[in-house]
Amino acid sequence: MSERIRISSDVHAANDLIARQNRALLKGKNVSALNMIGSPGSGKTSILERMAARMGAPLAVITGDIQTTFDADRLTRAGASAVQIETGGACHLTAAMVQKALRGLDLDDKKLLVIENVGNLVCPAAFDLGEDRKIAVLSVAEGDEKPAKYPALFTRASVVLVNKIDLLPYVNFSIDRVRKDCCTLNQDIKIFPLSCTTGEGFEAWMEYCIRLESKKG
Amino acid sequence: MSERIRISSDVHAANDLIARQNRALLKGKNVSALNMIGSPGSGKTSILERMAARMGAPLAVITGDIQTTFDADRLTRAGASAVQIETGGACHLTAAMVQKALRGLDLDDKKLLVIENVGNLVCPAAFDLGEDRKIAVLSVAEGDEKPAKYPALFTRASVVLVNKIDLLPYVNFSIDRVRKDCCTLNQDIKIFPLSCTTGEGFEAWMEYCIRLESKKG
Repeated sequence: MSERIRISSDVHAANDLIARQNRALLKGKNVSALNMIGSPGSGKTSILERMAARMGAPLAVITGDIQTTFDADRLTRAGASAVQIETGGACHLTAAMVQKALRGLDLDDKKLLVIENVGNLVCPAAFDLGEDRKIAVLSVAEGDEKPAKYPALFTRASVVLVNKIDLLPYVNFSIDRVRKDCCTLNQDIKIFPLSCTTGEGFEAWMEYCIRLESKKG
Repeated sequence: MSERIRISSDVHAANDLIARQNRALLKGKNVSALNMIGSPGSGKTSILERMAARMGAPLAVITGDIQTTFDADRLTRAGASAVQIETGGACHLTAAMVQKALRGLDLDDKKLLVIENVGNLVCPAAFDLGEDRKIAVLSVAEGDEKPAKYPALFTRASVVLVNKIDLLPYVNFSIDRVRKDCCTLNQDIKIFPLSCTTGEGFEAWMEYCIRLESKKG
C-alpha cells in the first residue's frame, strides 16, 4: 500500500511540473483557462455548445473522452476550435495530455480555453492541468447531496454550474442545499443555475467568463 | 509509462486472486452477487431502496462511497443489511475492499448481494469484485450516447437498468438507441427501463433477480 502511495506522489509531482508549464504558456498568450469537471451526462458539452454559439472563435476547447470524438465534433459544429483527447481508458486528464493537445491549437486569437475533463467526479479533481479555475458541473437530475459526497471537487472548484434547472419541477433537488453545502466546503465558491434547454442563467455565467478574460488581459 | 503499465497489471493480478476468493465464498453460501456500476446520480441507491423494500432481509448490500455513509444509512432504513466501504478517495471498489466488507455481513440468510460501486463509469468496469454479473445503471437524464462513449462498461455488463424513465417526456433520450448501441457491444445484454419515482419496470427487474437466485440455489 505504501508503495502505491509513493508512486502516486511521483505521478503527481511530474504532473504538477507540466501543469506549471501549461499555465505559463497560457499566461503568455493571455488566455484564461477553465478545467470543467462533472459526471457523465451532467451536460458539460451542452454548456460548451451554448458558450461556443455566444463566443465563437475566441473560445478554444480541449475535450477529454475515453474513446469517441462525439464531443469535439459537436463543439466544432457550434463554432469553437476544439481538440479531442482520447484518453484510451484513463478516467481523468493529465497535464501532459493537455500539453500535447495545446500544440494542436492556435491560441493567438483566443481569449478563453475550456478543458472539458472526462466525466467523473473523483479523479479529475486531483490533477492540476494548468487551469486558472476549476468549474464543477452538477445536473439537478443527479441529486443535491453530491457536494457532500464528493468534497474534493467542490472544495477545489471556484464555480458550480447547477445545470438542467428546467427539470427542477420533476426531481427532488434543492439549490439551497447545494449552496449551503458548497459554502461550508469553500466560502468563495460561486453558484450559477443554468438550463441549456431554455438558456436560463447563461447571461450571468457568460458575464463571469468575460470578467475572467478582462482580469487576465 | 511502461513502468506504470507493469504496476497496473500487477494490481489487476492481485485483485483477480481476491475476486476469485470472494466468488468462492459467495458460491458456498448460495448467494448471487451483482456489481452495480453507474454515474453519480444515476439512481443506484434509489433502485436498491426499492429492492430492499420488496426483498427485505434476504438482500445484502455493500456500498462504496468516497467519504460519507449516506447510502448505507438509506439502505438500512429500507430494510436491507448494508455495509459501507469508505474508499477514502479511490474512484472504484477493489476485491480486497469487498472481501473486508464481507466479513462484516452474516450471509447465512441472504439470497442476493448487491455491491454498489463508486459513482463512475470508467474505473469500476475494470475491477472484478467476485460478482456473478455486472449491472450498469444509466439515467435518462444523462443522455443516450453513454453506451457508445463508455464501451468497457457496457460490453461487460449483463444488464442495463435505464433509470428515471419518468423524466423521458422532458429530455432527449431514445431507449431504442441505447438498446441498439448496447446490442452492438454485447448481444446478450438485457435492458430494463425503470422509474424509482413511479415504480414502473420493477416487476420485470425483480423477476430477473429472483430467476438469478433460483439458478444459483
